[in-house]
Amino acid sequence: MSEDRRIPVSVIGLGPMGRALARALLTAGHPVTVWNRTRSRADPLVREGARRGDSVVDTVRASPLTITCVIDYDAVQRTVRPAVDALRGRALVNLTADTPQRAREMARWAAGHRIDYLDGAIMTPAPTIGGPDALVLYSGPEPVWQRHRRTLAALGGTADWLGAEPGRAAAHDVALLDAFWTAMSGIAHAFAVAGAAGVTPGDLAPYARGVVGLLPDLVDDLARRISTDDHVADVSTVRSAAAGMSHVVEASEALGLDAAQLRAALAAARRVIRDGHGDDDFARLTRAYQAEG
Amino acid sequence: MSEDRRIPVSVIGLGPMGRALARALLTAGHPVTVWNRTRSRADPLVREGARRGDSVVDTVRASPLTITCVIDYDAVQRTVRPAVDALRGRALVNLTADTPQRAREMARWAAGHRIDYLDGAIMTPAPTIGGPDALVLYSGPEPVWQRHRRTLAALGGTADWLGAEPGRAAAHDVALLDAFWTAMSGIAHAFAVAGAAGVTPGDLAPYARGVVGLLPDLVDDLARRISTDDHVADVSTVRSAAAGMSHVVEASEALGLDAAQLRAALAAARRVIRDGHGDDDFARLTRAYQAEG
Repeated sequence: MSEDRRIPVSVIGLGPMGRALARALLTAGHPVTVWNRTRSRADPLVREGARRGDSVVDTVRASPLTITCVIDYDAVQRTVRPAVDALRGRALVNLTADTPQRAREMARWAAGHRIDYLDGAIMTPAPTIGGPDALVLYSGPEPVWQRHRRTLAALGGTADWLGAEPGRAAAHDVALLDAFWTAMSGIAHAFAVAGAAGVTPGDLAPYARGVVGLLPDLVDDLARRISTDDHVADVSTVRSAAAGMSHVVEASEALGLDAAQLRAALAAARRVIRDGHGDDDFARLTRAYQAEG
Repeated sequence: MSEDRRIPVSVIGLGPMGRALARALLTAGHPVTVWNRTRSRADPLVREGARRGDSVVDTVRASPLTITCVIDYDAVQRTVRPAVDALRGRALVNLTADTPQRAREMARWAAGHRIDYLDGAIMTPAPTIGGPDALVLYSGPEPVWQRHRRTLAALGGTADWLGAEPGRAAAHDVALLDAFWTAMSGIAHAFAVAGAAGVTPGDLAPYARGVVGLLPDLVDDLARRISTDDHVADVSTVRSAAAGMSHVVEASEALGLDAAQLRAALAAARRVIRDGHGDDDFARLTRAYQAEG
């Protein structure tokens, strides 16, 4: 173990994700100081070798680098504000999920208090942390990233620095959560539609698996089309997509189900058609969301 | 080529999908008669060996099996009704996408005229037809399926009979289109969010690919949970999903984007929380759509 991997690290916020972060740092050999509003949350980590900070100030003082992982940025602010003097000249890596705007506000606050600040977004669930499947995105000043990247590597998997603009990690986070939760809600809804039509989850699952398995390649196709402004359809036009969505909305509502989600997507497709782009590729939909600002 | 693969087949409706169907049948050695409202659509197929039917009646009379693939069931009815006498005692395989209810109505109409009827749903795009990646689902009387399954195998890939209930293929179709188009709309929206926040499609794509690559396993997990009524969360609760969705909605709207789609999913998640199931697994969402009938 290199000396460099033994930098003390403090972790504030011990929900399932914060605990996973602290555990990964302990496993990598770092002295870890932990703090949580509900003290007992630290108990299992203390048994595994972490020190319990007496206060936020004491916790921050224990390490050159403090990681925060709490419910939202209001909670970050509430928690670290009393320790602002202790943070001065130290690094704060905030792995709390929130919007790009709040990440930028937080970065401004940190800069105003001469706190080295990185804003991060954890893209994979707690059980992946410390292992090869973890993905954490960071943005903020490059020197701060360079100084701490080897320590942050202890969180496992892929750690990518996306640039100096502090909102970048949160912007990726928000876009990826958007794709993920919209898709997951669609899958949950598909099981509801199937169920109402007498198709069991077990009957549907192998086909649904196949259908969602097409999505990764379509992500690349959409990205290429949007980047190059190439909207010449070769397989699926906005019009044919709208016809498909419309069948689903009609069938869902005939089965007594709430179809508001796909209805909203259908409305965006219809705006594209109304604007004269119905024969374009589905990638055109991206603009329909942008236009309706 | 076995004799059995040379049964004449008629194809009505020569959009991109209908043309792909006719071409796959020609390639498999079937005499193929084609018809389309706009006559010129048949030209390339005629050059490849298909015969152009003089009328719908003439087209239907040319083969024991007619496949229809048009825009919707109204168009099927409009097209085949004048040929109802010619269809009597022959088979009609309707590969037009529509709702389970319309599939059942169509099956009743066919039964009333002693037409052997299968309702089918093509789950993969036209370029897959005739190749190993094609997936076509069928429902309707088993004897009709057994009589024609070898002919329908010419359409390629996987051809699954889902049962006698004529709405079953359409029910699968609707549920799968629901998952697919909801997810695709979410991905298109994610690129819009990213773009508005200064993240290019090319920057986002590798991460988005990774995130949607998680979905196939989650389909199986959701199916298992819904089937066994197991809603004990181990990774992601409805409450944490709602917090994530809420960040996305807020960030999208702050960027001037339409967030109606994810807002609808968030509303369903909030119904689950309101009903006291916020600490359950996300699979619980399926019930929230069902309950709001």
